[in-house]
Amino acid sequence: MISRRKTRVVEVGPVRLGGGNPVAIQSMTKVDTSDVGACVRQVRRLTAAGCDLVRLAVPTRADTAAFGEIVRRVDVPLIADVHFSPERAIEAIEAGAAKIRINPGNIKKQGDVLRIIDCAKLHGAAMRIGVNEASIRDLKADVPAARRTGLMVREMTKYVRIFERRGFEKLVLSVKSADVVRTIEANRAVAEAFDYPIHVGLTHAGLPEDARIPSAVAIGTLLAEGIGDTIRVSVAGDPVAEVQLGREILRALGLYEEGRPRLTVCPTCGRCKIDVVRLARQVRKLLDGVEKPLKVAVMGCIVNGPGECADADLAVCAAEGKGFIYAHGKKKAVVPEEKLLDTLADQIRSLQTE
Amino acid sequence: MISRRKTRVVEVGPVRLGGGNPVAIQSMTKVDTSDVGACVRQVRRLTAAGCDLVRLAVPTRADTAAFGEIVRRVDVPLIADVHFSPERAIEAIEAGAAKIRINPGNIKKQGDVLRIIDCAKLHGAAMRIGVNEASIRDLKADVPAARRTGLMVREMTKYVRIFERRGFEKLVLSVKSADVVRTIEANRAVAEAFDYPIHVGLTHAGLPEDARIPSAVAIGTLLAEGIGDTIRVSVAGDPVAEVQLGREILRALGLYEEGRPRLTVCPTCGRCKIDVVRLARQVRKLLDGVEKPLKVAVMGCIVNGPGECADADLAVCAAEGKGFIYAHGKKKAVVPEEKLLDTLADQIRSLQTE
Repeated sequence: MISRRKTRVVEVGPVRLGGGNPVAIQSMTKVDTSDVGACVRQVRRLTAAGCDLVRLAVPTRADTAAFGEIVRRVDVPLIADVHFSPERAIEAIEAGAAKIRINPGNIKKQGDVLRIIDCAKLHGAAMRIGVNEASIRDLKADVPAARRTGLMVREMTKYVRIFERRGFEKLVLSVKSADVVRTIEANRAVAEAFDYPIHVGLTHAGLPEDARIPSAVAIGTLLAEGIGDTIRVSVAGDPVAEVQLGREILRALGLYEEGRPRLTVCPTCGRCKIDVVRLARQVRKLLDGVEKPLKVAVMGCIVNGPGECADADLAVCAAEGKGFIYAHGKKKAVVPEEKLLDTLADQIRSLQTE
Repeated sequence: MISRRKTRVVEVGPVRLGGGNPVAIQSMTKVDTSDVGACVRQVRRLTAAGCDLVRLAVPTRADTAAFGEIVRRVDVPLIADVHFSPERAIEAIEAGAAKIRINPGNIKKQGDVLRIIDCAKLHGAAMRIGVNEASIRDLKADVPAARRTGLMVREMTKYVRIFERRGFEKLVLSVKSADVVRTIEANRAVAEAFDYPIHVGLTHAGLPEDARIPSAVAIGTLLAEGIGDTIRVSVAGDPVAEVQLGREILRALGLYEEGRPRLTVCPTCGRCKIDVVRLARQVRKLLDGVEKPLKVAVMGCIVNGPGECADADLAVCAAEGKGFIYAHGKKKAVVPEEKLLDTLADQIRSLQTE
């Protein structure tokens, strides 16, 4: 079990962030926000995939108007992503945003920031302060990469003080970079400095095939260190892929319970005497649609096989031309290779009704 | 930059593990070791993919005999994976294994372990002590999961003492589990207790589609914490996939230099006014085969666009019907949408000859 960092709890509509609550998955719509129908459809696809919070960009007055209509038509708390304009922030809060994401660095007048804070307080909206490496880069064109982590945290500290002095503490913090190592370092520093919930993500991670591993490494490392109360995976393309990948990262760390089976398979080596990969593929098909958190193992030999089998609800440990079937850690039967799949199918059926 | 854990250096043939040397990628052959031709072909495919060390299982006398023949026919240091049998270990060392992987827990007599140590010392072979959760599970059938990490480290300590008392310190250590969190915890504990290089891996991770994210999270977290001197990704199926995934994990953390371009793409949102994903896919094609570590960015709007563009060798920041082209962080041109791709292609060509 991961020991998660202690934070205050911030409520985003009915979703509670921090304080040991489940890590919330969020994503962002990628259609024009003023197209209410398209937005509602995308939000619903996202929640069906397991998204807990959905963010929408609201660059224009038409977008904040549409935002209010979308809030009324969906069941998930919506977040408005605001840049540059205090008016958009205020309109979005008044339209029902459960949370606003702003980068105070791009709202020029401090008086405008204070107006947004007061409006959020009045309406009970939470606020994410998002500092991106790109915006630091923007501020100081020649800052070397190694010094940017420190600068991001310094910016963050400056903003948090503005909010706290105004008596607003319904804050979520994020520091993002497209660089995995700087993302990890900056988040560790923010986690050290503040006790607000943290929104973790690797920004601009790229096309899906490029984004998966860097996102898993960056977000996974932070979660494994107890850091992160809500996550957003950034993938260019369909946002449902962001939710699926977020779920996979959480699941890897035991932070997502969804009642699906888990299939352990040995990597195979020169010791294997039957086609373990083929058998594993067939077993994986049998498990499709099973909604019980069964632990199933397909192992190729007696080196680590018996140990993994002892831990599984159902397992097979292969030998030459045959397999040993284990159920709940106990050896049950020796079955010839050609009958292994049928035997496993029977066992899976009976485990489902247990 | 990751601050890597200080360790002694252990030589595995010409490959130096630990002490700040590059993290070595290893994999394992999955064909019968006694089939010399098939093994040699698979070893060569692995090294062509970037594998630094290749391991082979040697369960029989025929396998260790073949192992010697394979050693002579390939250019990469080979590791023999030995279980249960001291004879196989000694035969493999005499046949030219650069390293032996044993789990002293499954070699019953301590005298046999000492014979293996003496033989390795005589031939200059390194030795990996591998303790798997599955074998702990085997030893003590009813140990609850939460206590196994501690037991694995205690087993490891017992074995390390045997080797050290015999004056053998050419050791690499590994503690593996199929569980991501226990893999992380056990490796942190071993890194704390010893200064030998560590071999990191998530064992029995499953079929490729299931193995990628958990492997990236487990191995990535440890590497991000400075732990890991050689890695092995475990995937059921073609071992080349293990090497490719290992490389992706290292690359994400800046631990792999290979001179390939890196493409940053914003995830797109309701602010995007051109088809960023399509453009990014086209740019990715242009970058295929480019062997220079160019940083290229395709950004959809002016929020984070200019910041990422300022950091890139080549970038485009999209606006309505046009794009701003940046080269080496400086804005160069405004180009209509339909000419963006051609302009970027020209720029990529000229960056390659710079």
